[in-house]
Amino acid sequence: MDVEDFNLMFETGIGPGNGDPGYLRPETAQGIFVEFPQLKEYARNQLPFGITQIGKAYRNEISPRKGLVRVREFTQAELEHFIDPEEDEPNLSRVEDVELKLYSREKQSNKDGESQKMTVEEAVEEEVVESPWIAYYLGIAKKWYNSIGVDMERFRFRQHQNDELSHYASDCWDAETEVDGDWIEITGFAYRGCYDLKKHNQHSQDSYKLFKEFDEPETVERNTVNPDMSYLGPEFGDKADEIKSRLEKLAEEEPEAFNQEKIKLEIESEEVEIPSEKCNFSVEEVKKSGERILPHVVEPSFGIDRIVYTVLAHAYDEDQVDDERRKLLHLKKSVAPTEVAVLPLMNKDGLGEKAQEIAGKLRKKGFSVKYDDAGAIGRRYRRQDEVGTPICITIDYETLEEEPETVTVRDRDSTEQERREVSKLEKYI
Amino acid sequence: MDVEDFNLMFETGIGPGNGDPGYLRPETAQGIFVEFPQLKEYARNQLPFGITQIGKAYRNEISPRKGLVRVREFTQAELEHFIDPEEDEPNLSRVEDVELKLYSREKQSNKDGESQKMTVEEAVEEEVVESPWIAYYLGIAKKWYNSIGVDMERFRFRQHQNDELSHYASDCWDAETEVDGDWIEITGFAYRGCYDLKKHNQHSQDSYKLFKEFDEPETVERNTVNPDMSYLGPEFGDKADEIKSRLEKLAEEEPEAFNQEKIKLEIESEEVEIPSEKCNFSVEEVKKSGERILPHVVEPSFGIDRIVYTVLAHAYDEDQVDDERRKLLHLKKSVAPTEVAVLPLMNKDGLGEKAQEIAGKLRKKGFSVKYDDAGAIGRRYRRQDEVGTPICITIDYETLEEEPETVTVRDRDSTEQERREVSKLEKYI
Repeated sequence: MDVEDFNLMFETGIGPGNGDPGYLRPETAQGIFVEFPQLKEYARNQLPFGITQIGKAYRNEISPRKGLVRVREFTQAELEHFIDPEEDEPNLSRVEDVELKLYSREKQSNKDGESQKMTVEEAVEEEVVESPWIAYYLGIAKKWYNSIGVDMERFRFRQHQNDELSHYASDCWDAETEVDGDWIEITGFAYRGCYDLKKHNQHSQDSYKLFKEFDEPETVERNTVNPDMSYLGPEFGDKADEIKSRLEKLAEEEPEAFNQEKIKLEIESEEVEIPSEKCNFSVEEVKKSGERILPHVVEPSFGIDRIVYTVLAHAYDEDQVDDERRKLLHLKKSVAPTEVAVLPLMNKDGLGEKAQEIAGKLRKKGFSVKYDDAGAIGRRYRRQDEVGTPICITIDYETLEEEPETVTVRDRDSTEQERREVSKLEKYI
Repeated sequence: MDVEDFNLMFETGIGPGNGDPGYLRPETAQGIFVEFPQLKEYARNQLPFGITQIGKAYRNEISPRKGLVRVREFTQAELEHFIDPEEDEPNLSRVEDVELKLYSREKQSNKDGESQKMTVEEAVEEEVVESPWIAYYLGIAKKWYNSIGVDMERFRFRQHQNDELSHYASDCWDAETEVDGDWIEITGFAYRGCYDLKKHNQHSQDSYKLFKEFDEPETVERNTVNPDMSYLGPEFGDKADEIKSRLEKLAEEEPEAFNQEKIKLEIESEEVEIPSEKCNFSVEEVKKSGERILPHVVEPSFGIDRIVYTVLAHAYDEDQVDDERRKLLHLKKSVAPTEVAVLPLMNKDGLGEKAQEIAGKLRKKGFSVKYDDAGAIGRRYRRQDEVGTPICITIDYETLEEEPETVTVRDRDSTEQERREVSKLEKYI
């Protein structure tokens, strides 16, 4: 069998000719890290701040499968929340009572281990979730999943095993849902520490650090260089300035290098050597009003397609109505594509016109309304049940006769019907 | 000089190995046309209906330039409005009085030609805009551009010249704005007719037509075939069924082919010949209750990045305030990233806390609020002017002393300040 390298990123060429190689992003997060030097300016260099992004990501999966679960083009919504690890704390009071179902590393190792139920507050106190920031976002997210109709009986937070942790994460929990008998990851919550910003900071000219003021100025030792430009200039020409700033960085980060006789630097892929004596390295005492720190980052990363898939799968149901098998979606009002369907009992005697009038009024109020006059009323109810419309309104002869106007309002889940006044529909829906 | 082919689409490989070639979409529209057979089901096969899509499109531009004006990755928002060309008409009453600035083909040819101002109603009556559907969308769009702050003095609709018309469009108008002295296209309004659906219908197994019922059933002649399967089966094996359905399609579309002795078809890249006598071609009289028609399509296609660019460029201004040059963005409230900035006069004596409290309350009401306590108050006003925040609220010592609580409210454009009650802020903003 042939073995070959396979890059999960899609490659393309940018510009004319064969172009420069370019890749479709495999996650949205890196764009935020790369742009951090500019983003921190938007935040006026003050922590904490967060950047969210929703967009497509692309992975050249070898075998896409299971509907929306594994696809080559998918939608991610990511939040990168940058914090000062020494000072910033989440507002746990917002979520302390939210109950979490936690499937910890320890419970997973134990053969009979099951998820434990505990509040966010307990999870932090008992250190089941190590980072209070992660616990905070588990609480926020749990409330949201619940609000959009994820079935909490088929939902859990699972901690990554040590051998499963990404290179960048010190702790990671996944929100998982059970769909068709499998548990799938719908969101990852990672404490990425300063992994990404540190890497970028090492390889970039831009600074990924933020200045943090001390409460009181401190006297500290500072390593400085004062390179002899009358030597560097003639010797290295237009590279001299670059060498100077590299020496300054080196003095800060690796002062022991100046104990050697010569300093070696790589400038534009060429190695250059500078005698240490020309650098004038020294240690000074200075007043320092603060220091430059690398923020840590907390990252909730939502897989939108899988969340939609879960909501549909958990909403799907079949039952028996009037001796007939019925298919329906128990969608919450907040996510149902149609909030209310308006149906004339028949399309004659002015019923259609009256129904159109009521539908128009509801649309103007901002509701998502479907008008349907095609087929028997029972069949039209089924049609709406199947796409999860919570409420059907039927306009019949009583509507035309009664004062104030009334309609039949039918509930999707119970199929129960009752008369309601048209003028009070808005409030009811 | 070497001449080479250059594809404006980005190419990549899908799947393992060298993969199948794939391309990043150069416009969002085609996805809607390709999926039309399924989309028409969602609309329950009833015209008119529209499909909108917003997303990225990609073009491998040789020289990207001018900020957001020509980029390789951009955001399109497109509406494909499918209509029955014989029956459906736009609701012109919604926009009849909207005034359009039209730069027609005729005026462009004329050296001194200028844009004409006329209402949507006049444009349709005088046939300056040929299609009432296009005129309708020019009216809708004009109202929207105005509402988001496009300067109507630097805005026009320009008709495409004949030699400029795309292969698919019978009439096309661009919304154009003047930015930095150039006119740029921000939206195209094209009457695409049935060009796209017809092409797909010719090359696809799926049907891109919709059934349209006649008012009264009609008696018509129908060309039919009844292929002799006892001949086709043994002769062509598992291709026989495909041949049968192709013959049926041919009878409908090209009945004269059956006058020849032999019918030639290309099946799976191979040519096959079928004796006409085995096809049993005949013309029958049948009752027809309707016919299958190809919808026409009206397409407003918005370039989101260029619209954002225009809004920023048209909002940018400089003036003189307190003997200082001031930069500001006259953004409309509806598009300003921050609706209100809350500023404590100084960050001491409880002013900061009171300001945070007011900022928090406004956020809860759904406003986009910025809190800023860094630097002199004048400098903070300038900062907000520069990013287009319409209103600044300043918390000062009077706020702490007076009952009911009041604050200073400052208007960005006039820089005028007045006292207002905190409890009435929501209504004012």
